[in-house]
Amino acid sequence: MEEKKLREIQTGTEDIFDGVILNVKRDQVRLPNGHQSVREVIRHVGAVCVVPVTEDGRVVVERQYRYPIDQVITEIPAGKLDSKEEERLSAAKRELMEETGITADIWTDMGLYYGAPAYSDEKITMYLAQGLHMGEQHLDPDEFLNVEFVPIEDLIEEILTGKLTDGKTQVAILKAAMLLKRQGQAEQARWKN
Amino acid sequence: MEEKKLREIQTGTEDIFDGVILNVKRDQVRLPNGHQSVREVIRHVGAVCVVPVTEDGRVVVERQYRYPIDQVITEIPAGKLDSKEEERLSAAKRELMEETGITADIWTDMGLYYGAPAYSDEKITMYLAQGLHMGEQHLDPDEFLNVEFVPIEDLIEEILTGKLTDGKTQVAILKAAMLLKRQGQAEQARWKN
Repeated sequence: MEEKKLREIQTGTEDIFDGVILNVKRDQVRLPNGHQSVREVIRHVGAVCVVPVTEDGRVVVERQYRYPIDQVITEIPAGKLDSKEEERLSAAKRELMEETGITADIWTDMGLYYGAPAYSDEKITMYLAQGLHMGEQHLDPDEFLNVEFVPIEDLIEEILTGKLTDGKTQVAILKAAMLLKRQGQAEQARWKN
Repeated sequence: MEEKKLREIQTGTEDIFDGVILNVKRDQVRLPNGHQSVREVIRHVGAVCVVPVTEDGRVVVERQYRYPIDQVITEIPAGKLDSKEEERLSAAKRELMEETGITADIWTDMGLYYGAPAYSDEKITMYLAQGLHMGEQHLDPDEFLNVEFVPIEDLIEEILTGKLTDGKTQVAILKAAMLLKRQGQAEQARWKN
């Protein structure tokens, strides 16, 4: 089927829940075959995440309790935008600073991550942060997490063996590792010339 | 803080919405500092996804319209469990067969993916499928997607350049590529001996 024909057309929408984090809608749509169907959708403000890497190849990660899955898991620093309009890089700098106290000289956009596009529009922009400067954490009074510095090779091994389960963290770490490798190769090439 | 102290204790729960796909709860919790807070949570039945790889290194992917983000995106075959109790490997075999008509001889568990653990308990198990046999697609009458065979190197490039945005697909393709590389190295080592 031609790609533009795959599109579903909204024919109605209903507000289900307007919460602090989640905004839930139930929309009526017309399918490519003309049938009517229903789409339950989470509307989310959007978010950012950051892979902060030290000069000696360690990544700043957080051990954080996640209520929905009742587990403490390893994640990279991340957070919601303050509003749909907030500039994403500013949000990434703010979240990194608040959660870890770190500022960074070099920021690289690593692209987008849709965690559950079947039912949520949450769009996360992933960043690589290098040239780190350590400072003081500014957590919200009701926010609790432990910051750790872990060699990127160890995190890759945790991903490959299934120990590291957070989606955005898996993507962003693997992408960062590939970008760092390319940086290293480019560096080596420069030295040869 | 000690990790076990990071845990939040449920002190109440409220049903917000019980839909076809989404089940939304608003829970009251006690934080590590004793404060009360609220957690908005999606309870999801769980899902599986599959990276089906041909002998010549192409991955079977789908071009599918996703209503929440109003885009046709590239995804690997995936689907929800029929129930919380369904055996995940069976679900993966069923979804691969229904969406692409393919069966596979060799299945490798590539671990878990939590797409949005801050607000959803959706747990996706990722599989690598090899030794593929082509057959006939069995889509639901209201399901529309195009199946394509794309070299894994091309998908990796799409991930690195930010063109491929689906979270589970990014993780599973990058992990599959690393596992295939290790398989290749083990194979080479066997031939040397």
